[in-house]
Parts: sequence; C-alpha cells; structure tokens
Amino acid sequence: MKFLDKLLHASRKNNSLVCVGLDTDEGKIPKFLMHEDDPIFAFNQKIIDSTRDLVCAYKPNMAFYEALGSRGWEALRKTCEYIPAEIPIILDAKRGDIGNTANMYAKALYDVLKADAVTVSPYMGKDAVLPFLEYEDKGSFILCLTSNQGAKDFQLSLIEGRPLYEIVAEKVLSWNEKNNCGLVVGATYPEQLKRIREIAPSLPFLIPGVGAQAGEIESTIKYGTDHNGERAIINSSRAILYASSGEDFAQAARNETLRLRDLINLYRQER
Amino acid sequence: MKFLDKLLHASRKNNSLVCVGLDTDEGKIPKFLMHEDDPIFAFNQKIIDSTRDLVCAYKPNMAFYEALGSRGWEALRKTCEYIPAEIPIILDAKRGDIGNTANMYAKALYDVLKADAVTVSPYMGKDAVLPFLEYEDKGSFILCLTSNQGAKDFQLSLIEGRPLYEIVAEKVLSWNEKNNCGLVVGATYPEQLKRIREIAPSLPFLIPGVGAQAGEIESTIKYGTDHNGERAIINSSRAILYASSGEDFAQAARNETLRLRDLINLYRQER
Repeated sequence: MKFLDKLLHASRKNNSLVCVGLDTDEGKIPKFLMHEDDPIFAFNQKIIDSTRDLVCAYKPNMAFYEALGSRGWEALRKTCEYIPAEIPIILDAKRGDIGNTANMYAKALYDVLKADAVTVSPYMGKDAVLPFLEYEDKGSFILCLTSNQGAKDFQLSLIEGRPLYEIVAEKVLSWNEKNNCGLVVGATYPEQLKRIREIAPSLPFLIPGVGAQAGEIESTIKYGTDHNGERAIINSSRAILYASSGEDFAQAARNETLRLRDLINLYRQER
Repeated sequence: MKFLDKLLHASRKNNSLVCVGLDTDEGKIPKFLMHEDDPIFAFNQKIIDSTRDLVCAYKPNMAFYEALGSRGWEALRKTCEYIPAEIPIILDAKRGDIGNTANMYAKALYDVLKADAVTVSPYMGKDAVLPFLEYEDKGSFILCLTSNQGAKDFQLSLIEGRPLYEIVAEKVLSWNEKNNCGLVVGATYPEQLKRIREIAPSLPFLIPGVGAQAGEIESTIKYGTDHNGERAIINSSRAILYASSGEDFAQAARNETLRLRDLINLYRQER
C-alpha cells in the first residue's frame, strides 16, 4: 500500500490528525520503568497501547535513540516492530547527503527499521532526495519551513522576491512524480502555512510545533489541512509522553491525545 | 585539546591534508573478510593500520553503518575507538534539527561515539547548530557548498545578488565565537572555493569530491587552503578503500593514500 493511502486510512479509521512523537528520553520517563530490561521500549509499548486507536501516525525521533548508542538503536527497532501494522511510522531523521550515501540512509530507515516515511533535508538538492523517493510505497517529508527561531536565518531569505521555503515547496512538488512526497511545515507561522498549502494543495504536511493554545491549533487546521480537512499530520511529543510522571503515565498520555484529537476535530468541522 | 589544534598537529606530524573517508560497504570489501566476526571493523582496522602515518583525519560516514542496523552502529563504535588518539575523527552525519533534538544528536556523536568533529546541515539555522558548538573542544563542519549536481537547486540561488552558500559561509563565521566551526566545501567549483576562502580565511574546510585528475587537486589546493597551505581536509573514500579487492587491499590503500598525499604536497609547495 502506498504511504499516502496508509496515512489516510489510519487517519479516517481513528478520526484523527494526531501524530504522537516518540521523542523518548530516559531522563524523563517514569522512574519505576528504569527497572525494566529496556526502559525506553517498555515506555513506548505502554504509550502505543494507550493511544493506537487515537492517532494517524507515530513519529520516533532518531536523535533520542542514537544518544543511547547501539542499545538505543535496538529499542528503536523493537518500537518500530511493535507499532501496529495499520499505523504509519514516520522516522524523524532529517537526513540529507549525496546519492550514494542517501541510498544507505534510505536503506537504514526503510529496509532495516521498516519506516513508512522519513523526514529529509533539502539543502543538497534533488539528487540527495531522489534515493528516498525511489522507494515508491514510502513517504518522504522534506523540510520546508521549520518552527524554530533559526528558520529566519535561511528559510525566510528572499530569492527573486520569494522566500526560500516557497522555492523548496515548488521544487518538491516537481519531484513528486511517484506521489510520495510531503512537506515539514511548522505550526508557528499561519500566513506562511496558508501560502504553502496554496502551492501544494494535495501534499501531506507534517506539522510539528503545535503549542497548547487553542488559537494556534485553529489556524493550523484552517490553513494546514487540504480541502477535505485531511493530509495534515499534527505532531505532539512531550505534552503527550510526559503528561504524567507517575504510574498513570499511559492513561495521562491517552487523555492528552484524546483532548488534542477532539480539539483538532472541532476546528476541522468549523472549516 | 581543541579540535583545530588536534587537526593541525596531526596534519603537520604526517605532513598531510588527506582524510580517509571510511564509507565502508559490506558489498565492496574483499570477500575473504566476510569470514571475520565483524567484517566491517576488520576491514577498517587494516585500513587504519596501513594509513595512520599518512593522514590528517579519518571520516566515517554514518549512513554506511546505519544501513547495517545495530551491528553497524557497533562496528562504527569500535572503529572510532580504534582510531589512534592523535588522529581526529570527523563523523559525517549531516545532522540538523531544533535545539532539544540537536542536543541529542551532539550527545550521540560526541559523547557516545567520541567524535572530534561532525558535519551539520545549516537549513534550520543557528539554534539547530548551537548545541554542537557548545562542545567547545569539538569541531562542527557546516555544509556550505556541496559537490553534487543538486547543489544547484538551492545553494546557488541568489539572495540580494549573492548565492546562498556565501550567506551560509558568513553566518557560520558569525557563529564561530568558540573558534570551533568549519565548512564543507566541494572540490568541484574552484572559483566558488576561492570566494569562500576569501570570506572565511581561517576556518578549516572539509573538502570532499576530489577526483582522480591532478588539475582538480591543483585548484583545490590553490584556492582551498589557508595562507599557510593548511586548514584544508581533502577527503578521499572509495579510491583509497577499494584500491584493490584482493589480499593486498591494505597495501593498495596505503599506496593510493601516499600518492594523493604527495600530489597534494607538490601543489602546496607551488602555492
């Protein structure tokens, strides 16, 4: 099944645009889990069990696993294996390198870790992205406009009067021959989100950086979804994972996911 | 010791600007090594043993190890441990993500794998690079102008009449408060290399993409080194690693490294 179909299927079945970001940090998970053989995997299992009927995707963040060396890599592999087959796995890796090396990254993420989609950096251009796109059934989300302060340094620079991120969005559209591209677009810039959605009406958007404020979610849904109120993947990590540091962490994560899903769906209806 | 001092020390001791890129690929190493417990590590050991007196640095490419999953990660960890303490390890990772995640990548590369330097993508701006720069004794090489075709897509785009890669070089210079930044600059564009060296006269340059042609090496040395003929790290991977596929692979790698080192030194003298 193509990534986009798998995404839409999960999103419709669970009536959800919420993606749980598995940025699992040993320093932040409940202390009692540290007695487990693999505390990170044990934590992720509970989070997945308690949210799998409420999400459209899971997004493990590679950095958090790499920081633990080979045992982190193993926890990530087991986590990817544990995620239910009908829920897409988006590996947040932000890789970007020349062809031969990009091939190896694609192999690591798609073949070894069995991701359904990955995030990719655009800086090195088309031939650095192509090896990912050659996996026809997989999805590749290319960084467009990010939600951090540093986005101003280059992404907002004007090229012939237009910001770099718009040029990136258009290029990605031209690379989308196999219908397997997406864009990473931060939630902090509603006007820009609107503009990028105009440029790419049917690409799926991975949208991190949604804060706790309802107003921000409203504009994100209004401008970030497609004409059906779909194809937006709203990621939340810490607010869900660390909703409680006690024995009830999984239930608290479920409650927070449910709250976010329903708030998003409220604004989807109002569109 | 600061990264730059370690680099200059190794470079002077071995009278070399050559960096051996450890892009070790199980499909390309001599067949007889496949009987070893860890063929990748066994191969790297022999390459390191036979070139350690001829190089200024080693540059393992993360992608090649990640493509083998946790056993690849383990082979990389052992390789980093095996590299002689006086030779800098540059991990080619091209990471780039927001602060919290960049912290984790820095931890993975600097603390877990004990790299002396890493490569970083600039697309997400200053706050995505800062967590690397906070490791004062480590070096961070930020992608500036790369040697692939796709460099044209964004890096050569004009911003107020100047190409993006020049803006990146200037920004990196302004981020260099701890004197631990460097730039990745492809060897395929001599004129641009000259211009970037003018912008950043004292930053170390990591220069991949040097082909077999002597002419290309001449212009790379002429324009890429600093006023002393130093601070350029000329990477070669496949031409050295796979100089022979037989029992003599380590000797062949040594011969190729020696040839490149001496050719480079010839042009350093002519500067």
